[in-house]
Amino acid sequence: MSSKHLIEYEHASPEVRAVFEDIMATRRVDQVNNFWKALARHPETLRRTWESLKEVMAPDGALDPLTKELLYIAVSVTNNCGYCVASHTAAARKAGMTEAMLGELMAVIGMANETNRLAVGYRVPVDAAFEE
Amino acid sequence: MSSKHLIEYEHASPEVRAVFEDIMATRRVDQVNNFWKALARHPETLRRTWESLKEVMAPDGALDPLTKELLYIAVSVTNNCGYCVASHTAAARKAGMTEAMLGELMAVIGMANETNRLAVGYRVPVDAAFEE
Amino acid sequence: MSSKHLIEYEHASPEVRAVFEDIMATRRVDQVNNFWKALARHPETLRRTWESLKEVMAPDGALDPLTKELLYIAVSVTNNCGYCVASHTAAARKAGMTEAMLGELMAVIGMANETNRLAVGYRVPVDAAFEE
Amino acid sequence: MSSKHLIEYEHASPEVRAVFEDIMATRRVDQVNNFWKALARHPETLRRTWESLKEVMAPDGALDPLTKELLYIAVSVTNNCGYCVASHTAAARKAGMTEAMLGELMAVIGMANETNRLAVGYRVPVDAAFEE
Amino acid sequence: MSSKHLIEYEHASPEVRAVFEDIMATRRVDQVNNFWKALARHPETLRRTWESLKEVMAPDGALDPLTKELLYIAVSVTNNCGYCVASHTAAARKAGMTEAMLGELMAVIGMANETNRLAVGYRVPVDAAFEE
Amino acid sequence: MSSKHLIEYEHASPEVRAVFEDIMATRRVDQVNNFWKALARHPETLRRTWESLKEVMAPDGALDPLTKELLYIAVSVTNNCGYCVASHTAAARKAGMTEAMLGELMAVIGMANETNRLAVGYRVPVDAAFEE
Repeated sequence: MSSKHLIEYEHASPEVRAVFEDIMATRRVDQVNNFWKALARHPETLRRTWESLKEVMAPDGALDPLTKELLYIAVSVTNNCGYCVASHTAAARKAGMTEAMLGELMAVIGMANETNRLAVGYRVPVDAAFEE
Repeated sequence: MSSKHLIEYEHASPEVRAVFEDIMATRRVDQVNNFWKALARHPETLRRTWESLKEVMAPDGALDPLTKELLYIAVSVTNNCGYCVASHTAAARKAGMTEAMLGELMAVIGMANETNRLAVGYRVPVDAAFEE
Repeated sequence: MSSKHLIEYEHASPEVRAVFEDIMATRRVDQVNNFWKALARHPETLRRTWESLKEVMAPDGALDPLTKELLYIAVSVTNNCGYCVASHTAAARKAGMTEAMLGELMAVIGMANETNRLAVGYRVPVDAAFEE
Repeated sequence: MSSKHLIEYEHASPEVRAVFEDIMATRRVDQVNNFWKALARHPETLRRTWESLKEVMAPDGALDPLTKELLYIAVSVTNNCGYCVASHTAAARKAGMTEAMLGELMAVIGMANETNRLAVGYRVPVDAAFEE
Repeated sequence: MSSKHLIEYEHASPEVRAVFEDIMATRRVDQVNNFWKALARHPETLRRTWESLKEVMAPDGALDPLTKELLYIAVSVTNNCGYCVASHTAAARKAGMTEAMLGELMAVIGMANETNRLAVGYRVPVDAAFEE
Repeated sequence: MSSKHLIEYEHASPEVRAVFEDIMATRRVDQVNNFWKALARHPETLRRTWESLKEVMAPDGALDPLTKELLYIAVSVTNNCGYCVASHTAAARKAGMTEAMLGELMAVIGMANETNRLAVGYRVPVDAAFEE
C-alpha cells in the first residue's frame, strides 16, 4: 500500500488527531504506528478500535501487560499476520520479553498448532472430564 | 469418532503403555486424555508428540506453566479446535486460571483477531521502527 | 516469484489465449491480471477456474456485482491473502465501492472475526431457534 | 459447554441485565441468544462487544443490513465457526436473504476460498495496477 | 442442520437427479453423500462443483487418486472441517490408505502446521535459492 | 526481518553447529536454509524441530518422500505461509515433482478449500457411513 493511504497527524481531522493524541499519551510515544494511520481513513473505526484496545490491554487487569502481548503474538502468528507479528513482537520486547521468552513462546505456538491439527485429524471426542 | 478408535491402556502395546505411564506420572493423573488414546494408533507419533510437548511445556522455563496454557488456548481458539479449547481450558484452570483471567484472555484473543484482519484488510506497511 | 513464471499472451498457447481473450472481452479490459498469467501454467486449471468464476460472479444473479466483490474481500482478508485483497479491492472500487463502504466493510470483517473467536472460545451451544 | 455457563436474565447482575435489555430493545426480540449469555460471564466484554457490534451493524450506514449479514456469514464460514454460521444465517434470513441469495453467497465464498489458495500457491506477484 | 435441508433423490428435480446419477455412476455407489444432498439446494452450485471435482479428481492425471485423497485430508484438517475430514478419510481408505499411511499423514500435517507457524513467527526471509 | 536475526554457521555455538551439520549431511547440501538459521536463535527449538522433522520426513516410511513434500505444500498453501510454499515447492521439485504434478496439486488444494467451505456453510451433517 502506498503511503498516501496513511493519514499523517498534520493532515488529520480534529477527530482523528484527538485519537492519535490519546494513543501517544497513553503509550508515552511521540508517533503513532502505521496501523493507526491506516485506520484513520475511517474515523469511527479508528476511535472504536482504539477505545476497545485501550480497555482490553489496560495494565491493571487480571493478566499483566507482558502476558497480553504474548497472547497477541500467539494469535497473530496463528493468523499469519506479518504486520501484527512485527508490531506486537516490538511491543512485547518493550514490556519485558526476553530472548528466552521469545524462544519458548514460538515453541508453544508451534506445538499448539501441531497438536490442534492432530486432534482434528483424528477427530478426538471431547473427554467427559472437560465438560464440567 | 467412535470409541473403538481410542486405544485404552489395557489394550495397548508395551511401547504405548510406557508413554501413557510417563504422561500419568508427569501430570500426576491416573488416566490419559482421549487425545493420547487417539495418537496411540500411531505409536511413533504418540511418543514423539509427548516428548516434544513435555519439553515445551516443562515447568522450569522462561515462561511459567499458566502463561503457556493461556497461549495454548489462544492458538486453539484462533484455529477453532473445539477439543483443544476444552482440554486446555481445563488445564489452565488447574494451573490457576481464574474466571477473571479467562474473561480477559477471551477479550485479548477477540481483539487480536479483529485487529489482525484490519491490518491485512488495509494492507498496512510495516513500520521501519519494527525492523530492528 | 519471478516474472518468468507468468505466461504472457504473446507466449501463450492457443488454448490459453482463448481464455485470456474471453477474460478481456467479459471484463472489457485489454490485459489480464497476473493471477491468470500464473494459472496459465496449467491450462486446465486456468480454463476451469475462469469458467467457474465467470458463472459465479455473473452480473445477473440474486446478488449484485458489488455485493459479490465485497464478499470476496471479506473472505480474502480473513484468509490473509495479500494478492486477493489488492485485486478485489480494486475490482470493488470499479464496481462502485466508496471509501465509506470500504470503511464499514473493514469494520464488519473485523467484528466478525472477533465475535467468531469469542463464540469458539466460550464454546457457545447453538440456540434451538437457529436449527429450523 | 453445559448450560450452567450461560447466564440467564433472571440470574444476571444489574449491569448484565442492562445490556441484555438494550439488545432485546434494539433487535425487537424478547430473548438474547446464547452468545450473549456466554459473554455475560465477563460483563466488561459483554458490554464492549455489544456496543461495538451495535455501532458496526447499525442500519443507517453506507452498507445495508442485509449486506452486512452476508459479509458476516462469509467471514464465519471461512473461519469455520459453526455457531456463527447458524446465528448469522438466521439473522440474514430475517434481513431478507432468499434461498437464491444463500445459494449465490455460498458459491462466492467457495470460489473466493479456492482462488485465494491458487494465488498463494502460485505466489502471484501483485499487479502494479492494484497499487494505486 | 436438520435433515429437511438435504435434498433426497426422490424429491429432487430432474436437473439435480442427473447430477446425482452421474456421481453414483462415476463413483460406483448407489447413494450420494450428504454433501451433495446439501448442495442440491442450489442446483447450479451442485452441477458446477461436481463437474469441477470430477475433473480435478480424475484418475488419469499426473497424481494418483490416493495421493489426491491424502492431499484433500491435509487441507481439510488444516481448515478444521470435520465433515471433510470424515468423508475424505473414508474415501482415502477406499483408495488404499493403510493405517500406517494415515499415521504418517497425520504426522506430516502436524509438523507442517508447526513449522509454518515457526516460519511466520520468526519472520524468516525467503532464501534466494528458492526464487528460481 | 533483517539478516542479523539469522545465525550463520560461523557465528553459531557448538550445539547449533552440530544440528546444522546433521541437516547438511542428511540432505546432502552444503548450506542450511534461512528457516534453520532463524530457529537457531533458540537452540532447543532448533534441535527438537530438526529431530522431529527428520523422523517425520524420513524416506523409509509408508508414504514416499515426494508425497510428503506435496502434503507439506498443501498445508503451507492453506495456511498461507509464503516462506513455506517457496521452500517446499523447491524441495518437491528436487524430489521429482513435475510441472504437471504441480498443476494438479494446486487444483486439488483449490478444490478442497472450496468444498471445505461449502460443507461448513451448509452445515452438512456427517453421513452415518463415515462413522465406522
